[in-house]
Amino acid sequence: MDLTPQEINAMLPFVLKRENVGRYEDGAVVFCDRRQYPFEKRFMRCEDVESVAVAIETMVTQGGGPWVIAVYALALRARQVASESSDQIRQQLEQTAQRLMATRPTNTFIHRSLKNALAAAETALAAGEDPEQAILDWMEPTRDEIYLRSAKMGRYGADLIEDGDGVLTMCFAETAFLLGLAFAHQDGKQIHVYTPETRPYLQGAKLTAPSVHELGIPVTLITDNMPTYVVSQGKVQKYFTAADLVTLDGHVVNKIGTFQNALACHYHHVPYFAYAWAPDPNKPDRASIEVEERDPNEIREAKGVPTTISGIDAYYPAFDITPPHVVSGVITKYGILSAYDLKRYFGKEKPLG
Amino acid sequence: MDLTPQEINAMLPFVLKRENVGRYEDGAVVFCDRRQYPFEKRFMRCEDVESVAVAIETMVTQGGGPWVIAVYALALRARQVASESSDQIRQQLEQTAQRLMATRPTNTFIHRSLKNALAAAETALAAGEDPEQAILDWMEPTRDEIYLRSAKMGRYGADLIEDGDGVLTMCFAETAFLLGLAFAHQDGKQIHVYTPETRPYLQGAKLTAPSVHELGIPVTLITDNMPTYVVSQGKVQKYFTAADLVTLDGHVVNKIGTFQNALACHYHHVPYFAYAWAPDPNKPDRASIEVEERDPNEIREAKGVPTTISGIDAYYPAFDITPPHVVSGVITKYGILSAYDLKRYFGKEKPLG
Repeated sequence: MDLTPQEINAMLPFVLKRENVGRYEDGAVVFCDRRQYPFEKRFMRCEDVESVAVAIETMVTQGGGPWVIAVYALALRARQVASESSDQIRQQLEQTAQRLMATRPTNTFIHRSLKNALAAAETALAAGEDPEQAILDWMEPTRDEIYLRSAKMGRYGADLIEDGDGVLTMCFAETAFLLGLAFAHQDGKQIHVYTPETRPYLQGAKLTAPSVHELGIPVTLITDNMPTYVVSQGKVQKYFTAADLVTLDGHVVNKIGTFQNALACHYHHVPYFAYAWAPDPNKPDRASIEVEERDPNEIREAKGVPTTISGIDAYYPAFDITPPHVVSGVITKYGILSAYDLKRYFGKEKPLG
Repeated sequence: MDLTPQEINAMLPFVLKRENVGRYEDGAVVFCDRRQYPFEKRFMRCEDVESVAVAIETMVTQGGGPWVIAVYALALRARQVASESSDQIRQQLEQTAQRLMATRPTNTFIHRSLKNALAAAETALAAGEDPEQAILDWMEPTRDEIYLRSAKMGRYGADLIEDGDGVLTMCFAETAFLLGLAFAHQDGKQIHVYTPETRPYLQGAKLTAPSVHELGIPVTLITDNMPTYVVSQGKVQKYFTAADLVTLDGHVVNKIGTFQNALACHYHHVPYFAYAWAPDPNKPDRASIEVEERDPNEIREAKGVPTTISGIDAYYPAFDITPPHVVSGVITKYGILSAYDLKRYFGKEKPLG
């Protein structure tokens, strides 16, 4: 495969195109407002770090969006404090990174990329160069590399799909998954995607279903209580998701519901594959996982409309944990790995992003 | 247990009280509008059969409500055609029953109780008596018997619950389940109920959570993608649901999502119990089950608000099928039976209702 980042971008649906995920316009971070999508294609423009942090916290963007806008917010801050002393800039950028990392404790990618961007800024400062430019100079080739690696992973995924397959997914599995579908479709394979709506934020209904539809692939929306029945009917031959985090010992942390779909597939002998960037080198096992709990008010409403009375208690764990023995393969740049063999491939590697 | 139907009724939450489920007021069928509940306690009053049929079809009431108002609608029709000839009355009641049965093909109870009510009317007609009164004379002791039997089943369920148990349920498991919780609570057992919201109609959020809360028992609302994770955390020790239909060979047909929760419990060694009136004598096995599919538009919205764009395909199977090997017990008037032993208990029995 010799696609360029630009050619890859052209294959992607609206919400995943590079310029829509997030872009830096001198002194502003601009990104598609995923809360409005697919009903409206609206963009948010932030001119300060706090607005970006709040946008991440309030899910204006999610999945692969937050780390992109977090890094651009760091560049933005560097620009704002450019006239201050090196020490003051250093301190400001440190504080900014801390604020941005605090937005999503489970999202490894935000943490790692902010650290790398911070290191690039630090190097520039030490050499008397512009930290804003240094962050951007680190960012753009990193994003290129991510699209290239996503395409590589998508190719592995596409080759797993057979003509006539039904494909189950969960939440919004982003670029590698969508490229996997696009490649399989391009290869002439008939596929049919089933996407659970993914309450409470409805990423399946709002992002996955319209994006798959935009690729010209048949897609059917179901609610989150239906995957097992749909699988039991023989409509599903492969289950693919992204992974917010994979432990070194192969536990897949992803949007709540991923695990129960994986159990449904396991029971019905349907393989489950997780697209994963890399295992988190700081997460050796299940015990090291901290599952983010979000505002229970979101469970008591749907699209802003109350579903029950206010006196009712609610619980909102945002992720669940799928154990390695029900994971058929982890799709990485090295190929489709056993969840039990990640350490051997990634153990000594410096993580990208 | 020597509770009278009145004492049982007094223990029940608002939405399950006999007079709120449905009542017959000369020439009108009156019932709680479950679409408005718990936000408003509003009643619908129907003075013709078609309004009752449409109310059943549009889920104004559900669960144990439809058969009650269907039988009262038959009495209503008998009243309306009282001045016609016996043959005309017979024909009118037959047509009315057909219309009412067509509202919910999967609901055995509507079919069976309409047949019995029709038979009572027929006997009255043959004896030159009033068919309206005959239907009501059949109905009221039948309802008494149902509350008494529900209390018996609830007692079996309550004894399964241990002090400190977390209880998972699905949809709105109605009278026997709620009485089971009430009895366990009365016995001084600390319990905590987890109720999935049950999309798209949200019976868990709208009916179960407020009803359990009304009993003074702690209840936590979750979305339908969360049960497996909650079970994996060790928060659940028992899973109880109702059953819309049980086959003679022990397959439990209930609200979509029941099966995937049962798989989650099976995987985590948590027992699953289905409250069931009786197996359906006309449903020997899985192959005999017709799963009702409802309007896919309901999947593309939540509480009337669109969740995706209109061009997206959707699928709405209303029920799923839990195989007997993941059912720990079927709670019936005979006790907690193995799903594999229903035929021996119910095989020769004339069904009630």
